[in-house]
Amino acid sequence: MKKGRLFIISGPSGAGKGTICDRVRAKTDSALSVSVTTRSPRPDEKEGKSYYFISREEFDAMVADDGFLEYADVFDNRYGTPKQPVIDALYAGRDVLLEIDVQGAMQVKANFPEGIFVFVLPPSPAVLRERIIARGTEGAEGIEQRLNEARREVEYLPEYDYVIVNDHIDEAVEQTLAILRAESLRMTSATAKALIEQYRKEEM
Amino acid sequence: MKKGRLFIISGPSGAGKGTICDRVRAKTDSALSVSVTTRSPRPDEKEGKSYYFISREEFDAMVADDGFLEYADVFDNRYGTPKQPVIDALYAGRDVLLEIDVQGAMQVKANFPEGIFVFVLPPSPAVLRERIIARGTEGAEGIEQRLNEARREVEYLPEYDYVIVNDHIDEAVEQTLAILRAESLRMTSATAKALIEQYRKEEM
Repeated sequence: MKKGRLFIISGPSGAGKGTICDRVRAKTDSALSVSVTTRSPRPDEKEGKSYYFISREEFDAMVADDGFLEYADVFDNRYGTPKQPVIDALYAGRDVLLEIDVQGAMQVKANFPEGIFVFVLPPSPAVLRERIIARGTEGAEGIEQRLNEARREVEYLPEYDYVIVNDHIDEAVEQTLAILRAESLRMTSATAKALIEQYRKEEM
Repeated sequence: MKKGRLFIISGPSGAGKGTICDRVRAKTDSALSVSVTTRSPRPDEKEGKSYYFISREEFDAMVADDGFLEYADVFDNRYGTPKQPVIDALYAGRDVLLEIDVQGAMQVKANFPEGIFVFVLPPSPAVLRERIIARGTEGAEGIEQRLNEARREVEYLPEYDYVIVNDHIDEAVEQTLAILRAESLRMTSATAKALIEQYRKEEM
């Protein structure tokens, strides 16, 4: 059974990584990694959809048990990507998509360097500004903060394997699908070994 | 202008690499590398299509000038892949497909390690035998010779970046196209640098 691969999709808020992940999942058998958090669910949030909601004690036990691919504290709450469900999906032959910010991605890279790191960028800084404004969720200060964040995140581009400039969403989804497809054809030592054995042993 | 990439497509005779290259070229802007040879053209061969036909002296001058990505002697004739047309196409932003046997591919790898090496395999040794027989161009001895050659070639699988098991030609073509597409999205230090500069300088 061929193992799946872990795709880490990151990039600035407003780059469209959420939409890309949703549409790629809809077109493939890939799984989405669901984070755990210690914060309380919001009224519209369902257990296991946006997050798994766990207690502080459970979270700390998972940290002690090396149970995270990455985790972070945001204000008084903790957020993390549990390792085991990802490993299980990969061994079941499914690709896993992990949508995560750059800081989280760099932690995943340290813990799981065989992941495939994809950076999603808006076509230009100006378009990023427009998109953040169009969302209407940020005031002037929030907009500047997100743009500064984007500037800092872009500095991590060299750490990534692929870059998608999300100008048109359909194109960006197709590009992401091409990356998943190509990576499924990548030579690994296990693949090479199995094929060589086949040609050494099999009647020709 | 984004540079193209050189894709080296190799694998046993009968794997279908010629068909794959033709169909991928028809669907993309990619160029096919045309070899030069010192042998005489056959009646159906046109200059610049199967080969460029050159004299022994011209060939040797190109060797002395480091003008080949790879070259080989087959019986009394010399065959080679000229370097300059490949470089020109890449700088013009076109991908180049180079269909070549494993020995040639290993020379290309030594001279042009940034190439992307794709191995095309038939689904099984038994199918390879069937395909070679179906061609009807080989006697019993020729068939065994080609199969032994395939066995030797498969040992080089670990040197390649991708493997395509050509069970259905349409699928194999799609897979090759996905590899071309994904590789056009690969992060290079030049891409990362240009994008970082854009975010550092541009008004946001």
